Amino acid sequence: MKKRSLSQISPNSIMKDVNPDLDIERQNPSFDVERLTNILDGGAEKTQIRRTVETWIQNDPELSRENQYFQSQNERYEEGIRKSLYLAKKMDEMGWVEGGPHRDYCSRSLSSDLAFNVHQVFVKSILGLGTDEQIAKWVPLAQKFYIAGTYAQTELGHGTYLRGLETTATFDVATQEFILNTPTLSAMKWWPGDLGRTATHAVVFAQLYLNGKSYGMHPFLMQIRSLRDHSPLPGVTVGDIGPKMNFENVDNGFLVLKNVRVPRENMLARFSQVLPDGQCKKQGTDKINYLTMIVVRVAMIQREVVIILMKACTIAIRYSAVRRQSELKPGDPEAKILDYQTQQQKLLPQLATAYAFHFVSSYLQEVFDKAYTDTKEGKFDQLPELHALASGIKVIATEYSSSGVEVCRKACGGHGYSLLSGLPSLYTRLVASCTYEGENTVLLLQTARFLIKCFGMAKDGHPIPSSVAYLSSKNFGKCQAWKKGDFLNPDVYIDAYQQRAFRMLQNAAIKLQSLVQLGVAQHEAWNSCSVQLAWAAMAHIHYIVVEQFAKALQRYEREADVHRILKHLCDLFALHGMYLNTGDFMQDGYLSTEQVAMVTESYLDLLPVIRRDAVPLVDVFDFTDTSLNSALGSYDGRVYERLYEWAKKSPTNNQDKRVFETYLKPLFKNALSKL
Amino acid sequence: MKKRSLSQISPNSIMKDVNPDLDIERQNPSFDVERLTNILDGGAEKTQIRRTVETWIQNDPELSRENQYFQSQNERYEEGIRKSLYLAKKMDEMGWVEGGPHRDYCSRSLSSDLAFNVHQVFVKSILGLGTDEQIAKWVPLAQKFYIAGTYAQTELGHGTYLRGLETTATFDVATQEFILNTPTLSAMKWWPGDLGRTATHAVVFAQLYLNGKSYGMHPFLMQIRSLRDHSPLPGVTVGDIGPKMNFENVDNGFLVLKNVRVPRENMLARFSQVLPDGQCKKQGTDKINYLTMIVVRVAMIQREVVIILMKACTIAIRYSAVRRQSELKPGDPEAKILDYQTQQQKLLPQLATAYAFHFVSSYLQEVFDKAYTDTKEGKFDQLPELHALASGIKVIATEYSSSGVEVCRKACGGHGYSLLSGLPSLYTRLVASCTYEGENTVLLLQTARFLIKCFGMAKDGHPIPSSVAYLSSKNFGKCQAWKKGDFLNPDVYIDAYQQRAFRMLQNAAIKLQSLVQLGVAQHEAWNSCSVQLAWAAMAHIHYIVVEQFAKALQRYEREADVHRILKHLCDLFALHGMYLNTGDFMQDGYLSTEQVAMVTESYLDLLPVIRRDAVPLVDVFDFTDTSLNSALGSYDGRVYERLYEWAKKSPTNNQDKRVFETYLKPLFKNALSKL
Repeated sequence: MKKRSLSQISPNSIMKDVNPDLDIERQNPSFDVERLTNILDGGAEKTQIRRTVETWIQNDPELSRENQYFQSQNERYEEGIRKSLYLAKKMDEMGWVEGGPHRDYCSRSLSSDLAFNVHQVFVKSILGLGTDEQIAKWVPLAQKFYIAGTYAQTELGHGTYLRGLETTATFDVATQEFILNTPTLSAMKWWPGDLGRTATHAVVFAQLYLNGKSYGMHPFLMQIRSLRDHSPLPGVTVGDIGPKMNFENVDNGFLVLKNVRVPRENMLARFSQVLPDGQCKKQGTDKINYLTMIVVRVAMIQREVVIILMKACTIAIRYSAVRRQSELKPGDPEAKILDYQTQQQKLLPQLATAYAFHFVSSYLQEVFDKAYTDTKEGKFDQLPELHALASGIKVIATEYSSSGVEVCRKACGGHGYSLLSGLPSLYTRLVASCTYEGENTVLLLQTARFLIKCFGMAKDGHPIPSSVAYLSSKNFGKCQAWKKGDFLNPDVYIDAYQQRAFRMLQNAAIKLQSLVQLGVAQHEAWNSCSVQLAWAAMAHIHYIVVEQFAKALQRYEREADVHRILKHLCDLFALHGMYLNTGDFMQDGYLSTEQVAMVTESYLDLLPVIRRDAVPLVDVFDFTDTSLNSALGSYDGRVYERLYEWAKKSPTNNQDKRVFETYLKPLFKNALSKL
Repeated sequence: MKKRSLSQISPNSIMKDVNPDLDIERQNPSFDVERLTNILDGGAEKTQIRRTVETWIQNDPELSRENQYFQSQNERYEEGIRKSLYLAKKMDEMGWVEGGPHRDYCSRSLSSDLAFNVHQVFVKSILGLGTDEQIAKWVPLAQKFYIAGTYAQTELGHGTYLRGLETTATFDVATQEFILNTPTLSAMKWWPGDLGRTATHAVVFAQLYLNGKSYGMHPFLMQIRSLRDHSPLPGVTVGDIGPKMNFENVDNGFLVLKNVRVPRENMLARFSQVLPDGQCKKQGTDKINYLTMIVVRVAMIQREVVIILMKACTIAIRYSAVRRQSELKPGDPEAKILDYQTQQQKLLPQLATAYAFHFVSSYLQEVFDKAYTDTKEGKFDQLPELHALASGIKVIATEYSSSGVEVCRKACGGHGYSLLSGLPSLYTRLVASCTYEGENTVLLLQTARFLIKCFGMAKDGHPIPSSVAYLSSKNFGKCQAWKKGDFLNPDVYIDAYQQRAFRMLQNAAIKLQSLVQLGVAQHEAWNSCSVQLAWAAMAHIHYIVVEQFAKALQRYEREADVHRILKHLCDLFALHGMYLNTGDFMQDGYLSTEQVAMVTESYLDLLPVIRRDAVPLVDVFDFTDTSLNSALGSYDGRVYERLYEWAKKSPTNNQDKRVFETYLKPLFKNALSKL
């Protein structure tokens, strides 16, 4: 490539032609890029709707993301409020209906820019926990933003463990009111989004006390700020919890309540009601409601997790096709860094992982939809399996994706450290998902509890759910691969992953049982096995992802090109996981040393194969430049031009000379006579 | 623990008494805490000096770090300049001499707050590359800050590969000047610290052209900004590269040169000189100079890397002794999270790693000091080994420490995501070290090149350096451990690590050789093996760290308590590494499935043992609260009080009502009639 000289670069406009180093990567894709985009979108029609929405967003200056990396937390918050309300108005104008695909693509594209996310949870919690009258009264107000809500559950000293929450709601029969209190410092509500600077109302979770007796956690809808002047109501102390690693657009807040009175009819009462005389009346089953926690996890995997990993892959792979460094062949020009095996080994497994999680999240959605239908019909037997799957997939998706984004970022060297690359904020945002919606270790141990139960049932000959069928049906011997090519057979690697999951679970189960038999208390034995139990759950879910990816492929067997490239990605995902965890697979000689060498070779052989299509494979994701907001990752590959243009706009280049005048000039003047 | 009620918390002062949950952890340490602090400091006298310095810093309001997490990039930069110049003045006043321990502790304690770091590199580069006259002219001016310098090597399109740099310096015999140019966009200098908004001078690396012929990279000292008004000199375009993941205190910059003339005597000419007639004259050897690159890596491991991991461990372990969550035993109060095996498995290996890296960095310093002495005497034969060690240890220390800090951060749940925890900024700062001072993959492959060479020499029966002696002297059979306790014998695990390193290197070497024999070009074969070569280098360095930790212990054999706890940490570090990489150790049956189970049990058994001393073991690091700057990690364990106090000071709580008045009030007024 001929170097572009400085004088050829217009300072105020980014060139529209594509960097030849990137262009050439797009010349001969081995598969139909548009077709694969349609597959990921769920059909050509959806691709079209998505593009309609994204083109509008890209072109509307009110939704611009320019200069976002230069903004303070306060500016980001204000932008979040402004954009959210603008978007709501526009969507109404355009007739994009609630629950429809346009609206969905809007919020997916803009979610990291918007406020009112927990306001939506506030609405959903009323819909899920409120009576029909409560829904009729509150939901329309919230949907029109006439009130702003938050969902206040987590406390300063209490997260995952709901029973530990300390906020109290004591019923006063005389006035027919609940009296809400924050009895200790650690009981203050902490972290709820939209609480810090926005919410006028909150659904507050508190321990219900009736006649001095505790009735457990219940939800109370209460006003916390004036609608007229936004000042906190009497007894309410509320504010923002300050700077975080990301989520500057969200005003996470704290809330302290001191004898705040809430009328009896404001306890959300679909499932239990307090009668005027102070009796508590339970009604219906909240098992459907239990699904609302799961649905959040199911939705976040596709919308918040996989999409971020896809963005990071897009940025890092496009950049690696443009960035040149060192001689690969002596005497040649500097090589594209994407041609180095070490770079391929960093990026291409992340790409395969993004595809794997896309397909497993579709699978999870199907399982969820079925369970949802069943639950509505009063059949609840699939819930434990669904919960174990959703928890486990949430964990593996958030863990692998966040570490994958960081691998992508570091693979871009120094420029990956600049906020202008877009990569740091993808990481700092995504990594939060390892903690929210269920802390990952806690979730893994819940999946493990399900597995241990199934393991015992399988041993006793009872039927077990399909996702764990291998626990009863399998008789594992040794791996049957004889040459490295055998490891490109999904039957071979699925068997290996099943064997590994079985073995890891068996190790933990045997230890657990023997400890109990030795007289160790059950809870202590569980704790002593928890590292291995968590690992067994991870091995199980890893198997699920591999198997579901392999199954998804089969749908495209008649489209040779698409099938071939997806098969390569599935193989890479499976073999990369084996390469990184060989010890698990070698237990009891399931894999021999020679077979481990075959896995390694088979894995490494795939890298140059996928590398040829690496850029088309990220083009498939079809992100707009606005959506990527990356100086390194734009479609045209004009990396250096963009870095320079963006850097010049940084506020660090538009300061007055105060630092010079105050601190430097008095010193520098001493050099004037000497130079 | 009785809960502190809200009314007992003074809103404006943090209570000084220690949280009983933390206090109890300090009641019965199994070892002498102060003695171990002295050992890490290098003697009781050094501890005393360090405390003198840190107490002064803690008490001087000019050096306060309060509100740092609320500051913008511009504010952080201004603070960096102000504090640096204040500190320089104070150190002079106190008579703390250059190169003395007081000054060293100052800069170590404050480095993340200061500017002028690359200014110091500018000074060192003149000292290393300049003639005596050049040193005499420029160094005193820079040391007094009468000029501010930067070291401009990296370019927008070029990092690690120095020969790829594009900036040119063409000698004009007529005027006896070099004409410096940035010929392309990718040639602009990019990233140098202190360049963006501070430097008046720069050492610029450029391709020297004499009579149309290239002579390779040379350093040119040039002025870039006016000393009078700080405006860029003619032909100079200079500015700041904008926001980064961290390092807001540093003004990383860009620099474009257009026909900027530099007098002949400004080429730093210790090793080569341009004569008036345009001839280039080489003089002396620059091998000593080669050490200056290594010395930076040696120094950064202790000062920038290990210290940050130690801080993260301190914060996360103290917090985990205070934070309570869920019932461990049914009916008991919520348990300290540090009592969960899964939490111990996250944090305690990081603690062991911090100690391991402390000792290996002392070892590296010794190797360096010896090589330095030898080099001065003209003996250069230790340089390749030193380079391989320093590169490899830099890689393992930065990789393990940065991922370790992130493990600590995530182990603190939601609060670890708040900047007020101090943990996010430790991570975002430390992770940069994986890229700067030699990108880690590049460095690993340099170490691998040394290992492959030694492997060949060993095979041919030639003598090889001591750190790789195992490549020739060993005859590996099977691991000789029979019961889990055998794995607490350093001879056993050192042998295992040697075998693994040998095996990984052998795998790569055999593959490399067979590819070449098949006719694959050397550079292609190297690239095809580079993933395995990099891994072999990692395995070698992992072995070095384990062995040096085990050796360091031996010095304290007469102090039973200190020896015992260090031995536990060394065992944990070694076994944790085996547990995570069992596949490598199982090759050819070196470890059997049964032995892997023993390693796992031995590793897990150590967790509760070390957990008992976990808080004393981080108290050993002896960080002041100012230095930690963490709401979660302070000595008194008053976590929730501090989070609340600090959050209230956040600028997000001190905004006018503009957002409410502009966006929210017009909507909320619609609800007034309805509620």
